[in-house]
Amino acid sequence: MSAPDPSLLSLNTATIKKQWTLAQAIDGCARHGIRGIAPWRDKLAEMGLKEAARAIKANGLTVTGLCRGGFFTAPDFLDDNLRAIEEAHELGAQCLVLVVGGLLPGSKDLKLSREKILEGISRILPYARKAGIPLAIEPLHPMQAAERACINTLEQALDVCEALGDGIGVAVDVYHVWWDPKLEQQIKRAGRKRILAHHICDWLVPTRDLLNDRGMMGDGIIDLARIRGWIEDAGYTGFQEVEIFSELDWWQRDPDEVLRTCKERVAECARGR
Amino acid sequence: MSAPDPSLLSLNTATIKKQWTLAQAIDGCARHGIRGIAPWRDKLAEMGLKEAARAIKANGLTVTGLCRGGFFTAPDFLDDNLRAIEEAHELGAQCLVLVVGGLLPGSKDLKLSREKILEGISRILPYARKAGIPLAIEPLHPMQAAERACINTLEQALDVCEALGDGIGVAVDVYHVWWDPKLEQQIKRAGRKRILAHHICDWLVPTRDLLNDRGMMGDGIIDLARIRGWIEDAGYTGFQEVEIFSELDWWQRDPDEVLRTCKERVAECARGR
Repeated sequence: MSAPDPSLLSLNTATIKKQWTLAQAIDGCARHGIRGIAPWRDKLAEMGLKEAARAIKANGLTVTGLCRGGFFTAPDFLDDNLRAIEEAHELGAQCLVLVVGGLLPGSKDLKLSREKILEGISRILPYARKAGIPLAIEPLHPMQAAERACINTLEQALDVCEALGDGIGVAVDVYHVWWDPKLEQQIKRAGRKRILAHHICDWLVPTRDLLNDRGMMGDGIIDLARIRGWIEDAGYTGFQEVEIFSELDWWQRDPDEVLRTCKERVAECARGR
Repeated sequence: MSAPDPSLLSLNTATIKKQWTLAQAIDGCARHGIRGIAPWRDKLAEMGLKEAARAIKANGLTVTGLCRGGFFTAPDFLDDNLRAIEEAHELGAQCLVLVVGGLLPGSKDLKLSREKILEGISRILPYARKAGIPLAIEPLHPMQAAERACINTLEQALDVCEALGDGIGVAVDVYHVWWDPKLEQQIKRAGRKRILAHHICDWLVPTRDLLNDRGMMGDGIIDLARIRGWIEDAGYTGFQEVEIFSELDWWQRDPDEVLRTCKERVAECARGR
């Protein structure tokens, strides 16, 4: 097997969030020859936006996404999302990832919650366009619908994109969508125009927690190479961003080992065509 | 609020599986004025098929479904499903519920697994038709796709039904489908012809386990009354079957309290039109 192309691997900082600051993650990427990074905003605030932008640029890293905007069912969504757009702009991020929010507080009304989300996205979209930051809706796994995101399939996310026009697309995270019988069809529908990011990890059997028990590529049952193939066929040939929330395993390990393993595993089981 | 109509409440024996035998569950239903029951086959085997059929008939209970056939990705699916059909026939069950099975052993190939499932269902369908037992595909929540069922949306289940013709439909369990943006549309599509069962419980926030942390109706965030309304509008006005897997809560309680609570909660929050 040939060596992985490091230019296609990106590190989502959630993968080593318990071990490293953003400054350490930037250094780690540089040290391991990983050319992409996707920071979370709490880490960014801790490091300071200007210093982070400087260090990322100095190391020649591509910011494959800023995590995250969204939560449009919360009352104060507007200010927070406008700040996120500014930060994404300052970092030169390829997109701002949107985790759109769950049910309205105290409500069981999915339909209304989804309407508010659509309304919220349409409120921030003009600012994002002006800043040149594409918004990437990340459909989340249905098991996270109540608390984190009421957009739960790629089809639903693309319907929202089509309703809103340009400057908006999707982040395809295999963990959330691998099970979907319409995945291949909807990736094709999304095409190069709408696919803004590709996140990878694996689905463990059994899965012990609904949030923080994701697996390293190859340790679970997702056919990563097949999905990558569909995504490439649809015209997206950008970075694969590793995002692993793993309380019991990868967050407990030496982060240098984590990064080495990510590189090996992408080469072994997540290559496309 | 008016009293619940007991003729519309059915007890799936999973709800009290840790406390009661099937004989005790039958007695319990009779004592609480619950007119429907849905036994699991392990409990049925323990009691003996003929004795169970006799006791259910003696108490005038409707068998709203037999749980379960399926697991078509296992090598020995055929014999087991034919036995399940016979048992359902002997009990006069309204349907045989199918949990279709997860990925083929050792495989990551969802497409192939789904093909095998379709093939398996088509193998047993002629026997089911002959026995007068409708097969009810239960789409399971995507979080159970790998291990238990690769049919994960109502749309997908109805596509299978349409491919196979008569004698097959769906069991709509709110726990598995509540999040689906196409739920209302697909319930309408299913109509009276395809809706064979309606299962209820609730989705807890937070959910602590992927299998056995279901909630009692009213304790979670599912809008049960709205979904029941859609189901009734589609032409299904049969039983609502309570199926609660709850390691930490309801399986630890006095089963008479569980049954009383089911009756109260259906009246309070799961009534349709």
